[in-house]
Amino acid sequence: MHQPAYPPDSDPAFTLTGGPSGASAATLAALGHPILHHLDPAFGALYEATVERLRLAFGTSLSPVILQGEAVVGLEAAAASLIGAGDVVLNLVSGMYGRGYGDWARRYAREVIEIEVPYDSAVPAGRVAEALRARPDITIVSVVHCETPAGTVNDLDAIAAAVGDRALLIVDAVSSWGGMRCDFAAWQADLVVVGPQKCLGGPAGLSLLHVSEAAWAHMAGNPRAPRGSILSILDWRDAHLASAPFPFTPSISDIYGLHACLGQYLAEGPGAVQRRHAAAAAAARAGAQALGLTLWAADPAVRSDTVTAVRMPAGVDEAQVRARARADSGVMLSGGQGDFAGTVLQIGHLGPGAYPLSPVIALVAIGRALRRLGAAADIGAAVEAAVAALEQSAEPALG
Amino acid sequence: MHQPAYPPDSDPAFTLTGGPSGASAATLAALGHPILHHLDPAFGALYEATVERLRLAFGTSLSPVILQGEAVVGLEAAAASLIGAGDVVLNLVSGMYGRGYGDWARRYAREVIEIEVPYDSAVPAGRVAEALRARPDITIVSVVHCETPAGTVNDLDAIAAAVGDRALLIVDAVSSWGGMRCDFAAWQADLVVVGPQKCLGGPAGLSLLHVSEAAWAHMAGNPRAPRGSILSILDWRDAHLASAPFPFTPSISDIYGLHACLGQYLAEGPGAVQRRHAAAAAAARAGAQALGLTLWAADPAVRSDTVTAVRMPAGVDEAQVRARARADSGVMLSGGQGDFAGTVLQIGHLGPGAYPLSPVIALVAIGRALRRLGAAADIGAAVEAAVAALEQSAEPALG
Amino acid sequence: MHQPAYPPDSDPAFTLTGGPSGASAATLAALGHPILHHLDPAFGALYEATVERLRLAFGTSLSPVILQGEAVVGLEAAAASLIGAGDVVLNLVSGMYGRGYGDWARRYAREVIEIEVPYDSAVPAGRVAEALRARPDITIVSVVHCETPAGTVNDLDAIAAAVGDRALLIVDAVSSWGGMRCDFAAWQADLVVVGPQKCLGGPAGLSLLHVSEAAWAHMAGNPRAPRGSILSILDWRDAHLASAPFPFTPSISDIYGLHACLGQYLAEGPGAVQRRHAAAAAAARAGAQALGLTLWAADPAVRSDTVTAVRMPAGVDEAQVRARARADSGVMLSGGQGDFAGTVLQIGHLGPGAYPLSPVIALVAIGRALRRLGAAADIGAAVEAAVAALEQSAEPALG
Amino acid sequence: MHQPAYPPDSDPAFTLTGGPSGASAATLAALGHPILHHLDPAFGALYEATVERLRLAFGTSLSPVILQGEAVVGLEAAAASLIGAGDVVLNLVSGMYGRGYGDWARRYAREVIEIEVPYDSAVPAGRVAEALRARPDITIVSVVHCETPAGTVNDLDAIAAAVGDRALLIVDAVSSWGGMRCDFAAWQADLVVVGPQKCLGGPAGLSLLHVSEAAWAHMAGNPRAPRGSILSILDWRDAHLASAPFPFTPSISDIYGLHACLGQYLAEGPGAVQRRHAAAAAAARAGAQALGLTLWAADPAVRSDTVTAVRMPAGVDEAQVRARARADSGVMLSGGQGDFAGTVLQIGHLGPGAYPLSPVIALVAIGRALRRLGAAADIGAAVEAAVAALEQSAEPALG
Repeated sequence: MHQPAYPPDSDPAFTLTGGPSGASAATLAALGHPILHHLDPAFGALYEATVERLRLAFGTSLSPVILQGEAVVGLEAAAASLIGAGDVVLNLVSGMYGRGYGDWARRYAREVIEIEVPYDSAVPAGRVAEALRARPDITIVSVVHCETPAGTVNDLDAIAAAVGDRALLIVDAVSSWGGMRCDFAAWQADLVVVGPQKCLGGPAGLSLLHVSEAAWAHMAGNPRAPRGSILSILDWRDAHLASAPFPFTPSISDIYGLHACLGQYLAEGPGAVQRRHAAAAAAARAGAQALGLTLWAADPAVRSDTVTAVRMPAGVDEAQVRARARADSGVMLSGGQGDFAGTVLQIGHLGPGAYPLSPVIALVAIGRALRRLGAAADIGAAVEAAVAALEQSAEPALG
Repeated sequence: MHQPAYPPDSDPAFTLTGGPSGASAATLAALGHPILHHLDPAFGALYEATVERLRLAFGTSLSPVILQGEAVVGLEAAAASLIGAGDVVLNLVSGMYGRGYGDWARRYAREVIEIEVPYDSAVPAGRVAEALRARPDITIVSVVHCETPAGTVNDLDAIAAAVGDRALLIVDAVSSWGGMRCDFAAWQADLVVVGPQKCLGGPAGLSLLHVSEAAWAHMAGNPRAPRGSILSILDWRDAHLASAPFPFTPSISDIYGLHACLGQYLAEGPGAVQRRHAAAAAAARAGAQALGLTLWAADPAVRSDTVTAVRMPAGVDEAQVRARARADSGVMLSGGQGDFAGTVLQIGHLGPGAYPLSPVIALVAIGRALRRLGAAADIGAAVEAAVAALEQSAEPALG
Repeated sequence: MHQPAYPPDSDPAFTLTGGPSGASAATLAALGHPILHHLDPAFGALYEATVERLRLAFGTSLSPVILQGEAVVGLEAAAASLIGAGDVVLNLVSGMYGRGYGDWARRYAREVIEIEVPYDSAVPAGRVAEALRARPDITIVSVVHCETPAGTVNDLDAIAAAVGDRALLIVDAVSSWGGMRCDFAAWQADLVVVGPQKCLGGPAGLSLLHVSEAAWAHMAGNPRAPRGSILSILDWRDAHLASAPFPFTPSISDIYGLHACLGQYLAEGPGAVQRRHAAAAAAARAGAQALGLTLWAADPAVRSDTVTAVRMPAGVDEAQVRARARADSGVMLSGGQGDFAGTVLQIGHLGPGAYPLSPVIALVAIGRALRRLGAAADIGAAVEAAVAALEQSAEPALG
Repeated sequence: MHQPAYPPDSDPAFTLTGGPSGASAATLAALGHPILHHLDPAFGALYEATVERLRLAFGTSLSPVILQGEAVVGLEAAAASLIGAGDVVLNLVSGMYGRGYGDWARRYAREVIEIEVPYDSAVPAGRVAEALRARPDITIVSVVHCETPAGTVNDLDAIAAAVGDRALLIVDAVSSWGGMRCDFAAWQADLVVVGPQKCLGGPAGLSLLHVSEAAWAHMAGNPRAPRGSILSILDWRDAHLASAPFPFTPSISDIYGLHACLGQYLAEGPGAVQRRHAAAAAAARAGAQALGLTLWAADPAVRSDTVTAVRMPAGVDEAQVRARARADSGVMLSGGQGDFAGTVLQIGHLGPGAYPLSPVIALVAIGRALRRLGAAADIGAAVEAAVAALEQSAEPALG
């Protein structure tokens, strides 16, 4: 028997997952930049420039913070730093990441109240408003923008409006920022956590944080906010300034990679990046349905532009589909997380995967895999539907 | 006026610091490897192979653990995971890092007892034995092998012998392992933390941990040992096994870099790597003295083979020496940490900086800087002394 | 109006041309290896190892020769070195490259006889045998294995058998070797020229030459064979030996790249590489026809496994199709060469482009472009046909 | 016995040769850029931008030409293209490269007249003027600016003035341009050949040509000027224009590398680059003499700023000195070319080797090697002399 086209120990041809999403050649080259000492003036200048690029990308007036660890570090640090012993947290749960955030919040809060909805839906802003009215002692609201495994989004515009300045707002925008509109100012968001390995196409080992003045003040007033710890946000507030030392050695190589992918993001422009994600998402959704699959989220309004979750046909194990797509077509997909193991897989279309032909590639790989596993799949129709969606997205704007 | 040979915003020609120490071209190339999804089988195989290389490099039978953050994460996690509410910790302090470890220990321990010695000396093993006799309730001993800013080492062979199996032993070997003999088995060390950006010449964003069976058992019995946290060691125990999921996305690029530099370390061989560090250290010490400087540690027995700390002449600010060495000679040195700011700088000779001519380069750069600042410096004598030390180190072994 | 998905000054997502064909990440990393001096022993060892890898890849017992310039240098040098003032050359012409070779041959030969056939066909071996019988003074036969622009191949097995040892045989295998079976020994080929930027996925700046003992002897006996020239093959005969100096500085970076891609070729295995090319070719041919296009070569026997030439529908300019495929789908195709400008384009499926989904990507890009230009294109059918061909190719061998 | 610090099959730490001279990290990263098809619009734009950068670096108004092969290709092509059957060439010989150029000139010229001087001196401009007066039929003068093996330079300002517009002027500036002032306009130079692997710190596989209008006209009028050949300059005249096709596939990767190192050259500025070379040269010369060695060229006026040739003490083989410097100190030097084998070696200080501490590194390595071979070497004095020269070069300009 022949060996598979893509043996498991050789790299895949395409990474179309919920992230890490791959990286451009220029970003990879930057990751291979010589490793300087962190106090070298050239690295200091690079770090400062990186924070400034991030500020421009975030569209904020305050300098953002880079934490030296994967996005989970930013999320855990946000809980540890912001949530004090006196805080009552309203945690919104529309998926596994929202549920998990409750665990972190409970470590630090006086009380955690939760609104949980089925994981193929979003938390209605009305219920948030209601909860805030019912419990005037709520001081912090936490919400996940995009639930990666489910490919669903909460309506942050509406939820943020419901929160207003009634409470501090923690947003997990790890897999949405960059691919979808995130207006930190309009949301009055206080602590937003973004992962560079998602829509930016950057390295995995960093957390990118927007922190509002109110959040800084709340942290400063929290005696248990970590200091001298990997979980400290306060320690890194001024780390980008030439006058301030780094609390510890930052992840030199990752900072070079981040600097590069932020430059690419700014050059392309936030609007263009979002349109690219929207087009790929439209193609993936249309194609998956034409292939014969059901989208996990029935309501179009809750579907993310960064990742599409699809149910497998009865009797087909999503893990096997992914394994075949990887082996036969060289396409790496994600899936199998927690509750969804075996039944729901994700087509990622974010960062370097949010390009016109990416969904086509994913669909053909899934279609081939389904057939190999004995299930029906209308590959031709899927590709036609994806292409039609792409052409529609590419319609020139009027004028 | 001409601009400096090495403007601050361009890279230096040589990084001869206490770490990060730079990286080989092959390691840099590996850092630029395509960013795969963490569940991609090719990445899984690479991760497993990396842990196995680390096991061989550590010379241990147990699989080591990689934590996804700079060495301080490993150190903090060791305290958080191993030190329970019932533990009494004997913390040995011969420098700033030892002092700092006491702060972490106090967060978690019932009581922290400290033996502190002047920072140009080492903790005598006899005092450790004495303290253990005096306080039978001590359960954990923590010690820094090499105090980077001071360029001093504690005698781990003797201290570990004094501890024996009387207590668990936490060792900060961040800047010693690789460059000096570290016999984890003979030491009966229970939790050792190593940084890949030091003697390995690797990326900065990871912690490398040796964990003994006794340490695993102690952690398992510690109800406050972190879980679901960046500070959890337990979460990552089996992360290298194909059967176990990663607790969260590892730092993909850094793992590729680590895999590469471990391969180079094993190919060169631990003995050869240590000899290379010893030779560079001998050259740096002899040369610095011939240049007219005083070594920080008067006792040759406590001087590290990985970094040499030197006092500046009266009236000369070490920060200015470093700035001039960087600007005029393209040599980045380290210094200015805490108590030593202004007076003591470090010549790093570890990892890619532990090669024959590195100390010569550092000495010439320091000598030029001293002269520019109006101080005397016998550069010719310094180079001659360094070269003499190199030739002596290169003497062929008998037989 | 939106700007195109792939602006002309940004890199394409996919290069599916007749070559250069792109390169793997490992090959690109090797191209970025530090530039050593050519007499450095490490480079000497690398050069020797590269020639040995090439020998293994060629499946020959004689050490091959690397010329320091693109494949045209090898072809021109072959003419200049091998063809003496007394030689009568039989040049076989089934396409533009064969025609061009006649020009080179005429510079050096006493006489050049040509057999020319239409450019969508191949030269029948019978006509070669006949010509050799008719003209006993023919000393050299020259033939192009794969005519890239036409995607056609001459039957080298048959032609070489017709030549036997009657004459020296020059083979342009630039775009066939690696992707199709080339048995230099069985062919008794005397001078074969291969380009690393084709099926190997290597750099463009080198020529790879197999030279037989008979060819070496013929060159040695040719007083006009260049010496002290970029066109000299003789100068480089022993350049890979430690004992021999390089005639001039070789293309250091390209040699590193060649060493890497040859390693990958040997690891995959010649048979597997050829099957991969055959499968991609089958998919491209089936798909292009299902898309509604006509293959340039009507006779399946003359179609190359490395590139497929397709005619555009009446009224559609192939240059516009390629421009749209590049701008809208990020797919770079080739075409527009000489006689074929405007009417015939090529889908390359060689080297890094010879993977299962590559033809699918090319077909979708062409289909989208045709529709944008007002022509019909059955994209769904094309993809289905390509997928069907892939599945057929992937059938496990019996037993 | 220990193995050497730098085994022959591992890379050296420092390349301080007459070229290739190494490359910056940014240039190496550019060499690893994805290999595009040569007709890709992104590559076309890059090629055009590279020629424009080269024009700015050359300080000319005419677009220069890139030939796709090492500098010898440019030199041979210059002879083949410019020297017609009716030309009488005055070839100036002050070293091995000048002597070799006579061989190329004789292939094409009606007659070659030579002025030869000892190889430790330069050709006096007066003799050139005299020869031109004596032979009014001389149409072309050819001269090597820097003879790399001898580290000597001809006074091009004076020689060019002597030639004026009396004849076409071919200049081999392969190892001088970039490191020393080359005023193509003032010289009225007609065909200048430069190698990117020398003072630019670029890849080895390209030739960079300045061609004057008069040279273009002379080539156009030369019926034997190559066309359809690697030796054709005419074929590449317009290759950088979007409207013109490439004659054949250019060396994609090398072009990316050239684009990068030209950008660095322009950013640093020609004046700064030349000062850097002059300072390193002064340090190398002063240091070599203080070490106890004799400079090959007794006359300071003929010493190149890019490479310093030194005689070995009696009884010491330069090849052994180089071997020891490479093995013990990781320093690669050049030497052993032709007439100089065994007696004269070169310290390169060009491109990435033309930095302040490079000569120090070379001197220490040579000093250690001499001592190992039983010869005297005052390393301390050598370093002091080199440092003194550096400080003098770094004196701020007045006002």
